[in-house]
Amino acid sequence: MDSLGAIAELINQNDDFLVAAHVSPDGDTLGSALALARALARLGKRAQAVCEDAVPHIYEFLPGAADMLRSENARPARVAVAVDCADAQRLGSALPLFRAAEKTINIDHHETNNAYADYNFVEKAGATGEHVLRLINLLGPEPDADMATCLYAAIMSDTGSFAYSSTTPDSLRAAAMLVERGADPARINRRIYRTIPFGKQKLLGATLTGLALHENGRIGLACLSAADIASCGALEEDTEGIIDHIRDVEGVEVAILIRESASGVFKVSLRSKHFADVGGIAASMGGGGHKRAAGYTVLGSMEEAASGALTLAREALRA
Amino acid sequence: MDSLGAIAELINQNDDFLVAAHVSPDGDTLGSALALARALARLGKRAQAVCEDAVPHIYEFLPGAADMLRSENARPARVAVAVDCADAQRLGSALPLFRAAEKTINIDHHETNNAYADYNFVEKAGATGEHVLRLINLLGPEPDADMATCLYAAIMSDTGSFAYSSTTPDSLRAAAMLVERGADPARINRRIYRTIPFGKQKLLGATLTGLALHENGRIGLACLSAADIASCGALEEDTEGIIDHIRDVEGVEVAILIRESASGVFKVSLRSKHFADVGGIAASMGGGGHKRAAGYTVLGSMEEAASGALTLAREALRA
Repeated sequence: MDSLGAIAELINQNDDFLVAAHVSPDGDTLGSALALARALARLGKRAQAVCEDAVPHIYEFLPGAADMLRSENARPARVAVAVDCADAQRLGSALPLFRAAEKTINIDHHETNNAYADYNFVEKAGATGEHVLRLINLLGPEPDADMATCLYAAIMSDTGSFAYSSTTPDSLRAAAMLVERGADPARINRRIYRTIPFGKQKLLGATLTGLALHENGRIGLACLSAADIASCGALEEDTEGIIDHIRDVEGVEVAILIRESASGVFKVSLRSKHFADVGGIAASMGGGGHKRAAGYTVLGSMEEAASGALTLAREALRA
Repeated sequence: MDSLGAIAELINQNDDFLVAAHVSPDGDTLGSALALARALARLGKRAQAVCEDAVPHIYEFLPGAADMLRSENARPARVAVAVDCADAQRLGSALPLFRAAEKTINIDHHETNNAYADYNFVEKAGATGEHVLRLINLLGPEPDADMATCLYAAIMSDTGSFAYSSTTPDSLRAAAMLVERGADPARINRRIYRTIPFGKQKLLGATLTGLALHENGRIGLACLSAADIASCGALEEDTEGIIDHIRDVEGVEVAILIRESASGVFKVSLRSKHFADVGGIAASMGGGGHKRAAGYTVLGSMEEAASGALTLAREALRA
């Protein structure tokens, strides 16, 4: 493990950079990459921010997002920095560009990070954005309002607006500093959390209207057929996050959302609140995840998928 | 306006206190009152925390909530402190107790506060809890985990988990300090925001299922009859906050939620996102509120209430 000071020194000695975000980018990887690229540019260095995927709609407001390059439009640089990537594969099509650099840097907050670069700074934190803020402070350019906005979005989004157990005093202090530098907490929150497509909101309505409780309210189950999703004008990706609204019901320990992904193919998502091991359920069905959030796929009918999931959830409640 | 130092001095010279929260208590008034009462007790003083109303279910987890007294069970004290009350009337049935004290103190973050006590500390902030933390730091007892939990809940709930425009660097720094003192951000967030009665969640489902857009998606309108509310197993109070989910729809500028409060009586709630003056709409109908959040009551049928609100909202969009 290398220090941020050593990384700052390497950066000071070079002037051509690639800053890479991970595939399916989230607020932390995007905000971290854009803030670092901007800080490097402010120091008079060349810096390309790059990602395999396009910037998702809700993050388009991030300053610099319009200049973010898709992998195929970027060129190799002397130094490449990966932000928020627990392993090199998370770079997707940006991996060859990363590997083409003479020196590589890996800055991340995932404890599972496997130190795949020449210089690795990996430390548990609410968000990689916290580390990037520290690095920028070492490099010298005072974070301007644009960098502050990117880094605040990184920290806020990766801590669920300071609601996840990963939130630390350092996360909150970094956020305070970024607000002082010009980040607007209300605007950033609204752009990321409160700009919901109509179809997704209708889908939430359909999910909750169909929500049923089982086992004295300890299991909440909702099912969405392909027709339900289509009639809401929603996309399958709009189901993301909807299961949280089932888990949020008072008394529910296991939340189950089943959606028809293709004819006869059902995706079962599971969440638990306090103790039930839904990762075990998913593993027994050939799926994956962890204790509190997991999922698997089954073939058959919606009724079979629902009764199978209920049986497994009942067992998990008793375990 | 008095300094917190002068208030700390008055507190140090006395040993019998009443700490009063406002009617319809929220997290800020409760967390502030309970933390201050606990700090006073830690200093060896007598301290009663009091409120006209019972502690709402979602705040029952606050340390000390079970010892909070209803007004009729409290007795006068030598010094009374009102927390988070913009005027004395907000104390409700605790006002006679407050007035019976030899010395009164008013600690608040509402700029409209009319300085009704002998000692007044009123300063704009994300939450009154920020001021109470500063006062406790002046008084001396290191905030313990219970005080930290109360004050974190106060600040988090009054800033919408650091999402409202009232969130300042000081709010975030106070939160950081409270996490260091033992407040658990994830647990407090879950208890306050993620413990939703089944009936309320069903009501959200019914609202969003019935949600319709008008004026090219710039107006979102949903209606809830008394029968809708009853069939969800919900109470009328469960409608609180539901309009936010309408306003959150991408492109919606004016959100309208109409609920049947009694036969032929309709409560119209209005929210706007960026520019529309819904306070003006409400005022023209004999209601109240401000530019971004307002409401009024009309008699007649649901159809009349809806078409009237739509007409006014269209005008507000053009203004």
